[in-house]
Amino acid sequence: MKTYLQKAKALWISFVSLVAVILTPALAIASEANLVLPVLEPDQSKLLMMGLAVCVLGMLFGLYQYAKVKKYPAHKSMLDVAETIYETCKTYLIQQGKFLLILFLFIGLCIAFYFGYLQHTGVSGVLFILMWTIIGMMGSYLVAWYGIRMNTVANSRTAFAGLEVKPTKVFNIAIDAGMSIGVLLVSVELIIMLIILLFVPRELAGASFIGFAIGESLGASALRIAGGIFTKIADIGSDLMKIVFGIKEDDPRNPGVIADCTGDNAGDSIGPTADGFETYGVTGVALVTFIVLAVAPALQTTLLTWIFVMRILMIITSVVAFYINNVFTQAKYGNSQDMDFEKPLTNLVWITSLLSIAVTYVVSYYMLGPVSNAAPELQAIWVVLATIISCGTLGAALIPEFTKIFTSPKSAHTEEVVKASREGGPSLNILSGLVAGNFSSFWIGMVFLALMFIAYVASGYGLEAIMIYPSIFAFGLVAFGMLGMGPVTIAVDSYGPVTDNAQSIYELSLIETIPKVDKQIEKEFGFKPNFEKAKHFLEANDGAGNTFKATAKPVLIGTAVVGATTMIFSLILVIQNVLGVQPESILTLLNPYTLFGFICGGAVIYWFAGASTQAVTTGAYRAVEYIKRHIKLDTTSQKAATENSKEVVKICTQYAQAGMFNIFIGIFSFALAFACLSAPVKGVDAVSLFVAYLISIAVFGLFQAVFMANAGGAWDNAKKIVEVDLKEKGTELHDATVVGDTVGDPFKDTTAVALNPIIKFTTLFGLLAMEIAISPAFSSMATYAGIGFLVIALIFVWRTFYRMRIEKAA
Amino acid sequence: MKTYLQKAKALWISFVSLVAVILTPALAIASEANLVLPVLEPDQSKLLMMGLAVCVLGMLFGLYQYAKVKKYPAHKSMLDVAETIYETCKTYLIQQGKFLLILFLFIGLCIAFYFGYLQHTGVSGVLFILMWTIIGMMGSYLVAWYGIRMNTVANSRTAFAGLEVKPTKVFNIAIDAGMSIGVLLVSVELIIMLIILLFVPRELAGASFIGFAIGESLGASALRIAGGIFTKIADIGSDLMKIVFGIKEDDPRNPGVIADCTGDNAGDSIGPTADGFETYGVTGVALVTFIVLAVAPALQTTLLTWIFVMRILMIITSVVAFYINNVFTQAKYGNSQDMDFEKPLTNLVWITSLLSIAVTYVVSYYMLGPVSNAAPELQAIWVVLATIISCGTLGAALIPEFTKIFTSPKSAHTEEVVKASREGGPSLNILSGLVAGNFSSFWIGMVFLALMFIAYVASGYGLEAIMIYPSIFAFGLVAFGMLGMGPVTIAVDSYGPVTDNAQSIYELSLIETIPKVDKQIEKEFGFKPNFEKAKHFLEANDGAGNTFKATAKPVLIGTAVVGATTMIFSLILVIQNVLGVQPESILTLLNPYTLFGFICGGAVIYWFAGASTQAVTTGAYRAVEYIKRHIKLDTTSQKAATENSKEVVKICTQYAQAGMFNIFIGIFSFALAFACLSAPVKGVDAVSLFVAYLISIAVFGLFQAVFMANAGGAWDNAKKIVEVDLKEKGTELHDATVVGDTVGDPFKDTTAVALNPIIKFTTLFGLLAMEIAISPAFSSMATYAGIGFLVIALIFVWRTFYRMRIEKAA
Repeated sequence: MKTYLQKAKALWISFVSLVAVILTPALAIASEANLVLPVLEPDQSKLLMMGLAVCVLGMLFGLYQYAKVKKYPAHKSMLDVAETIYETCKTYLIQQGKFLLILFLFIGLCIAFYFGYLQHTGVSGVLFILMWTIIGMMGSYLVAWYGIRMNTVANSRTAFAGLEVKPTKVFNIAIDAGMSIGVLLVSVELIIMLIILLFVPRELAGASFIGFAIGESLGASALRIAGGIFTKIADIGSDLMKIVFGIKEDDPRNPGVIADCTGDNAGDSIGPTADGFETYGVTGVALVTFIVLAVAPALQTTLLTWIFVMRILMIITSVVAFYINNVFTQAKYGNSQDMDFEKPLTNLVWITSLLSIAVTYVVSYYMLGPVSNAAPELQAIWVVLATIISCGTLGAALIPEFTKIFTSPKSAHTEEVVKASREGGPSLNILSGLVAGNFSSFWIGMVFLALMFIAYVASGYGLEAIMIYPSIFAFGLVAFGMLGMGPVTIAVDSYGPVTDNAQSIYELSLIETIPKVDKQIEKEFGFKPNFEKAKHFLEANDGAGNTFKATAKPVLIGTAVVGATTMIFSLILVIQNVLGVQPESILTLLNPYTLFGFICGGAVIYWFAGASTQAVTTGAYRAVEYIKRHIKLDTTSQKAATENSKEVVKICTQYAQAGMFNIFIGIFSFALAFACLSAPVKGVDAVSLFVAYLISIAVFGLFQAVFMANAGGAWDNAKKIVEVDLKEKGTELHDATVVGDTVGDPFKDTTAVALNPIIKFTTLFGLLAMEIAISPAFSSMATYAGIGFLVIALIFVWRTFYRMRIEKAA
Repeated sequence: MKTYLQKAKALWISFVSLVAVILTPALAIASEANLVLPVLEPDQSKLLMMGLAVCVLGMLFGLYQYAKVKKYPAHKSMLDVAETIYETCKTYLIQQGKFLLILFLFIGLCIAFYFGYLQHTGVSGVLFILMWTIIGMMGSYLVAWYGIRMNTVANSRTAFAGLEVKPTKVFNIAIDAGMSIGVLLVSVELIIMLIILLFVPRELAGASFIGFAIGESLGASALRIAGGIFTKIADIGSDLMKIVFGIKEDDPRNPGVIADCTGDNAGDSIGPTADGFETYGVTGVALVTFIVLAVAPALQTTLLTWIFVMRILMIITSVVAFYINNVFTQAKYGNSQDMDFEKPLTNLVWITSLLSIAVTYVVSYYMLGPVSNAAPELQAIWVVLATIISCGTLGAALIPEFTKIFTSPKSAHTEEVVKASREGGPSLNILSGLVAGNFSSFWIGMVFLALMFIAYVASGYGLEAIMIYPSIFAFGLVAFGMLGMGPVTIAVDSYGPVTDNAQSIYELSLIETIPKVDKQIEKEFGFKPNFEKAKHFLEANDGAGNTFKATAKPVLIGTAVVGATTMIFSLILVIQNVLGVQPESILTLLNPYTLFGFICGGAVIYWFAGASTQAVTTGAYRAVEYIKRHIKLDTTSQKAATENSKEVVKICTQYAQAGMFNIFIGIFSFALAFACLSAPVKGVDAVSLFVAYLISIAVFGLFQAVFMANAGGAWDNAKKIVEVDLKEKGTELHDATVVGDTVGDPFKDTTAVALNPIIKFTTLFGLLAMEIAISPAFSSMATYAGIGFLVIALIFVWRTFYRMRIEKAA
């Protein structure tokens, strides 16, 4: 493995040099479309300065929540386990950080050459733009780090709260932690973007936005892929021991359990947090770009201000909804001994959604409506704009409901999985879960279609008066609206890893076996612990966490698709400006290159699904092999040896790195290849290839991601039903559902979730590549470059199987 | 179940009435684009008459092969089992026939109204066109019946030949049977089409072709879906008993085995035969239509003649290649005691392909080239045309090679599945198989892309001089070329069910337990039977059958995609004629309806995958439940009771019918819904919806089908490796691979294979629907009709899960 990574590094360096050699002269040519942002009016600036203050308050709210959670007590045995998990996560994050730096060196090189050497921006300007790229990447990285710290504080406390027979407390700690991450993340994002909007010189602001977005996207893609692979190797590795040795979940003698807990954070916390941060940013940048390029100049600043105000308000509505929901939850469950943990989470989502919609209309009315001093064209369409955004916001609440139809422990599909497993064992379990995923793809696809269609119809009511391509703007606004309740979407998503960890920590702490622990707890913490109830709560709470982890995924992937549409728009304008043709005349379904582009997109999505699964399969094989040989069940020791646990973490890290490396270069090379092959060498027709490719990965990605996420969710909760409701652990039925759960692991937590950042990275980076490729002077070279990159991409596709095989990995 | 089917019937009747009510006035409007075929020159007619004679000879060759196979001897015990299988198949086919008649009543009604009442074609003309629809449907049905008869004659004889320790004999019987079906099928197809081309009055010939194609497509879709569900219910049902009771494959005490053998024929023989017949016809009709609509009138007859001559020649090349291959095989393996059964099949494919390519160039040279009396425009491009066809022919040989990389027992992917299963049990087995499917989608997608790209480039060399949209014609020619070696493609595909059955018949005949059977065989048949060798041969031969069943699938789905492109062309001309706009200006990627169409297509493909799998899952659950309760292992009886076997067949039939019913109406309503919603009510933009939908189901269908087919193939052969090479039957490893195999069953033999006819049916039927929808007078009604059909479609999507659930099914 060591030599393998060294070889990989050598390959990487030669790859970077090659790209640099090809891109450098190319960058000399691509230029124009430099985004110059309009100057804001003084009162607009003032309004946004106030918004900045709100964001700072939001950040403080996040930190306050952190402090609040930290004040909750927990038994030392649990705190110790949580600390071990955090330490392991830190090691993982540091390693990822190094890798990100390498990635950055390359992207930074390109950016520096482009602006410094070719655009003569001057050293200070170049450093300035580079700074934003770093900020974007570090932003993704640091919010992820914060998320992990928050989670590893909350997990032990949630576990301990279970002992107190106060389900609301179990719920509150986890959701407090989630809200801390969600609000802080969005606040930081907005602070950075507002700083660019308000203070950066106009001629650099556009480049800064783009640099920032590329940085974010890079960070998020890498963390999502690696985290997704890591977590599922560990998860499968430790889960399978349940069948092989008949031990229970999170048995401390299982050396895979610490890796599993680390993975829960690496995959379900670091990944989504970085992803959320990126999604929020990129969608915003896409809209900003669209407004600057497509809207009548006189109206740009008003629209920009309006959009940012909308975003800032969502921090407030999320926090308000959170408190309202707290009051409700306390009133309803405050004194009860049991509760349905999904209910308050559902309520939170709906309260936020309805509140956000109300606020959207009210504030749009005052900012753009008849009482405002906005231009008459805007006054005529304030309702339309508010309606389109609300479509998205409603979507962010509707999509989780649809997801639950397929994945919630109470849904017919999940029931069907359990039932099928009873007679048909693992075979029918797998098939039935796949059915759930397939049906969910259909219905959620229809929901997206309906939302986009409403937005399209709405865009017909007056938007064409102030901009070109109003339907594309409308799609962007829908994506924007879906992210409107971002803090809450992230919060309910972050709920999952906390509750998952809490359950593990309970077992790993071996608290029940500590002599006289009940007396000690009563003395120190003032209550009598109830071990049976605690386990029940933690298990049920984990189920709710599963469901809501599942519901957040389609929302994020949805924004990728809808948002990508808006970004593709910039590409279309580039085509128009550089080639001097009407884009409509090239980008047609009768152009064979369009069909070629679709086929390429489909192929890449299927490859990605296979490659990411393969990385997990190989790694899990090694992990299982190692754990089987080193687990000691017959000795008196109640815990696995530390060096064995560490070795499992090491296996996970190695395969995650290797997998990410091969996959990322593949994705990257495909983007460059198809962009270069779109060069208009023998007529402009070829240009359609790359645009169709981007649309294709977005649509294929949407269905594949929803399918995999929800099939995984259904299997996961089918297992939960057998464990919690039927209490049939250790039976054949349970074994069958464990198989489904482990198959679903990489489905939902590796592949499905990585598709979102990958689609956005390809689209963003592709913009730059395409601009170069179609510039007249580079066109003739572009074909050769394209073939070169295609060959590299194909080699890496080959590597993702043949160099990631089980036998080769030893 | 009974009442359920009655309810279904009532629903169906009301649905038919509704469609009739809506379509009838609509049909009054749609008219023009009536395809009038050009009159052939006398020498062209003479040439094609000779071709007709060749086809009749081809038919005789097919019947000769049948007689030849029938002359091989077999032991009575084996003949009896084969006869039972044939009788069960007959019952199944008769049932399907009734269902087809109901479907026909409806389609026939539409056609009769259209031509009779509205077009005033006159009674005789209407009856004439209807006759071709019936011929199409009956053609699909009857070749399927012939295929089954051939297979049930060959299966017992192949089983018996195993005893003789002459592997070439085992091989020969199966391939003789396959060639019989392949050549007969193609000959019949061509005879029918030549009769239309040569003898039908010109003004009716176009309508007759279309009627014929719709009839074929209807028959094939229904037989593929129902057969696919039937076979896999039975297969899973009997396979799972291997794990549950530790009995061997095809244990006669298992009441599911007869249903399984029937299913092998219903799914792997009836389905593909009908499908092959339909594919051949529809692709031909698409090309004929294109030539009549898009090629310069003066050149049409020459091109039509050339295309038919090409097809006819392929019968000759296939038969010649078959005999050449026989000589080789005999020389190499004639005296050997063992052989690799895949080798001669691979050789056959390659010999046919290379021979066909050579013949294509030679004959094109003489028919169109400088020595011919063809028009100078054609003389200039004969090389181009021959090259494009050869791309397809090469593809038909290349795609199987690529498929083998992922599914052959010797491939790295299949090995990986076995290896993953060893440590990771069913979990990693499933994941590893999915990886194989995913990677295969990527690579085979790339092969299609390369073939289409070459054809596109070639079409740039002079084709534009004689036609519009030359690249679309080129794609059609590629599909045509892929089918060029149709007889051999069908032959190697039919090899599978024969060898699969042969293995089962060996076990079911209980030949080893018949007292003094070796003496009896030696006396009656003149050789000493070797039971061990026989089992080994039959098992190895079955593996080869698996591989080649797998390789035919991507070829058929490929023709659907490439061929659909050509059919969509007619749609585009309709748009141009009816709406009077340039299609290029509407069918753009900037038109939101295009994006909506893509999303709809993706959604429908995912739904179809889910719905077909659900039908299998529910049915398999019932079958497993029934078999578990009724299998008797402790009694002295060596065979399952006949009534139990029959009951399993009944379960399979019921669920196959119910599944097909719900799915087919869904597909059908979606086609009508999206066509109607494409009506240009508020501007022509909406028209793009349906075109994009068709392209989307083709591209999504391609990847989904290849993915599912090859994942299934990899699992199937992984199990074979464990059984044949590793000889680890009954171990945990074997159990794990059985799980993969059963999951793969509906993947490869239900869903993947049904996508091809479904895509083509939607495209063909959609042509008619679209023509109605966009006609000016109907447009205003179209939206309501569209919403109505969409609601019906959604109800049936809902039904495919909620009315096909396990609990409801009792």
